[in-house]
Amino acid sequence: MQDKTSMASRQSRGKKLVDPVFSILAKAKEAAAEYGEEKVVNATIGSIQDDDGHLATLDKVTELVRSFAPERIMSYAPIKGIAGFEEAALNFTFGSSRPEGHLAAIATPGGTGAIRQVIYNYADDNSNVLIPDWHWGPYKVIAKEFGRKIDMYSIFTEDFKFNLVEFKKKVTANLKQQDNLVIIFNTPAHNPTGFTISTAEWEGILTILREAAEDKSKNIITLLDIAYIDYAGEFEEVRKFFTLFGGLPENILVTVASSMSKSFLAYGMRCGALIGLSSSKEVVDEFVDVSAYSSRANWSNVNHLPQELLVELYNNESMLADVYSEREGFRKLVEQRGQLFLTEARESGLEICPYYAGFFIAIPCDNPEAVVERLQQEKIFAVPLNKGIRLAVCSIPTAQMPGLAAKIKESLTD
Amino acid sequence: MQDKTSMASRQSRGKKLVDPVFSILAKAKEAAAEYGEEKVVNATIGSIQDDDGHLATLDKVTELVRSFAPERIMSYAPIKGIAGFEEAALNFTFGSSRPEGHLAAIATPGGTGAIRQVIYNYADDNSNVLIPDWHWGPYKVIAKEFGRKIDMYSIFTEDFKFNLVEFKKKVTANLKQQDNLVIIFNTPAHNPTGFTISTAEWEGILTILREAAEDKSKNIITLLDIAYIDYAGEFEEVRKFFTLFGGLPENILVTVASSMSKSFLAYGMRCGALIGLSSSKEVVDEFVDVSAYSSRANWSNVNHLPQELLVELYNNESMLADVYSEREGFRKLVEQRGQLFLTEARESGLEICPYYAGFFIAIPCDNPEAVVERLQQEKIFAVPLNKGIRLAVCSIPTAQMPGLAAKIKESLTD
Repeated sequence: MQDKTSMASRQSRGKKLVDPVFSILAKAKEAAAEYGEEKVVNATIGSIQDDDGHLATLDKVTELVRSFAPERIMSYAPIKGIAGFEEAALNFTFGSSRPEGHLAAIATPGGTGAIRQVIYNYADDNSNVLIPDWHWGPYKVIAKEFGRKIDMYSIFTEDFKFNLVEFKKKVTANLKQQDNLVIIFNTPAHNPTGFTISTAEWEGILTILREAAEDKSKNIITLLDIAYIDYAGEFEEVRKFFTLFGGLPENILVTVASSMSKSFLAYGMRCGALIGLSSSKEVVDEFVDVSAYSSRANWSNVNHLPQELLVELYNNESMLADVYSEREGFRKLVEQRGQLFLTEARESGLEICPYYAGFFIAIPCDNPEAVVERLQQEKIFAVPLNKGIRLAVCSIPTAQMPGLAAKIKESLTD
Repeated sequence: MQDKTSMASRQSRGKKLVDPVFSILAKAKEAAAEYGEEKVVNATIGSIQDDDGHLATLDKVTELVRSFAPERIMSYAPIKGIAGFEEAALNFTFGSSRPEGHLAAIATPGGTGAIRQVIYNYADDNSNVLIPDWHWGPYKVIAKEFGRKIDMYSIFTEDFKFNLVEFKKKVTANLKQQDNLVIIFNTPAHNPTGFTISTAEWEGILTILREAAEDKSKNIITLLDIAYIDYAGEFEEVRKFFTLFGGLPENILVTVASSMSKSFLAYGMRCGALIGLSSSKEVVDEFVDVSAYSSRANWSNVNHLPQELLVELYNNESMLADVYSEREGFRKLVEQRGQLFLTEARESGLEICPYYAGFFIAIPCDNPEAVVERLQQEKIFAVPLNKGIRLAVCSIPTAQMPGLAAKIKESLTD
């Protein structure tokens, strides 16, 4: 549409969401209707499906949802979250690896709401937000919505470690041209690769950030998107890296986007938390002020029901144990599918991004669009990325895993 | 906080939410704890409380909430809303008074989410959004979040009709200095006064807007915030004014913020719809594009459960009849309280804003903060506005209404 016929505000003209997952999902469903579900590999859906192709949910969570008195779910929740939510969110996020410093948490509509708050409130208009070349697409959508730009670093070295050299280059270059730099990390069990930043790599990253923060006119805001943490391994083990974030300089603000979507298989309920951590009380106070203001201005308050759910689970050990035990079954299911694929990938010589755990496996390739189209001829439906393709192992039935790696390998050399 | 110690982005510095309702609510609760609930008039809460002081909810809605299969509430809803949501939202919004033209509706987190979309996507940065002097405070919070400014017109003539003269002045003046003008109306049963714009007044308003739209370089975007419509009178009757919005010039875009919060007493579930209406298909297509993009960038998708609720009720006449019958009881309860107050206000010579229906009654006065404080001495807790005070008749038990008008009258002359 030309500007002449647009009625939108200057900054909103031309915005149009392009959702590659949606269109490929539609094709997968068409194919399933035509050839039968068992003949079609639908590797697009980013939520856990059991081996019968049904959405996985947690019985105890459903039971709780149905048990709340109506006034506990129908009344407005306070803007920052209900009583007990903050403590519950901090606990589920950090476990016993709560970093030292001043902490605050407020409720958000899922991880997206938390990410939106950080980008809007901490990246200056027209400045860069730093993300890896392998990334979750919506970071770019969010940045563009607010007139923020994106800069990327190559996340992997040639032997698939975290690329500290490239990371440092980009941090330094960006801080030369802007005062605030928001840096987004998606770990552990990174979307779209399943990569997890190791403790040693975190130490390297934090050394780089400490050095950059020696210039006190600069502000560094790290955003840890931990949406997949509960599928990355044992609860306490995968949270140990958080302690590294204590005691950072006052001009490094650490934020964490925590989500109930995957952790409680409650995607549709739209509840998460945005956490702020700093050595400075003033910085955390300001974090709460600007975040709560943005909440009031964008969605007012967050769905009440999942907040009650989180607080209830936090206070009821035996119920939580049931939830964890059920979730562990699904984690293992996804793990098993991933391991099957990994083994076959090795056997067939298919190079994949470093997959440690999580919902997705990524395969680097040239011309991902063409590869995705070739795979569709084989009734395999994957999502094209900039530098490869993404398979949602969270939703592919285990029975469909054997042979998949070989077929993908073939599609690359066609 | 000085800029020097702020880590926020330039446009977010200094943002801090001041919520007068919250602090007064806290005082009311303290007083209730000290003197007993029956001794304290808490006129702050903007949701219906029954005469025992409990949050009113609808049994049939609760029953439905508990009946959904988990995959229907835990899965992600599509960004624009689930299948059937658009038609259901258009139906609940317009009834049989659906205006002529191109229409679209997308799901939003409550009315706030819808209002945010319109202000962000249609008002230019640093331009004015036009609202009445008696208004819902968060319009200003939303505008400020995005660097939009607020201009106000005096909504009432001296005899408490809609002030077409003042309205026209402000429309003309603003369109001289900017190309896009977002104008927000809160009607029927306006928050905070209970005023409803009449058909004749709407005709006058639309004549002014049609004239202003003769300059084709200008765009007018009306936003109808109808949060309280279902407490304004009979379903079809209160919706008749919508037909006036058909056939407007292509450079007038009509948007409607529709909310389930009050209509289904489901405040905490955060679901509403943003509706666009235009004579031009292109304008509505762009409306959907920019709105969906903003949804993806701010909250991704809307709570799934209330969307299922709305579609279910739309498709189940007998269930809907039960919901409506229960809601009618609460509507009458609020009406009865309002009428009691109105009668006593007349008797005691207390001048109030024109209250037709709805959750709130407003009393114009000088120095509202002082009046509110004097009332607190009488254990009456009301909310101060710019030009008066607000009483939430939706939440004051009927037994507490007698004598209230006289006490307020007294507090004005102290």
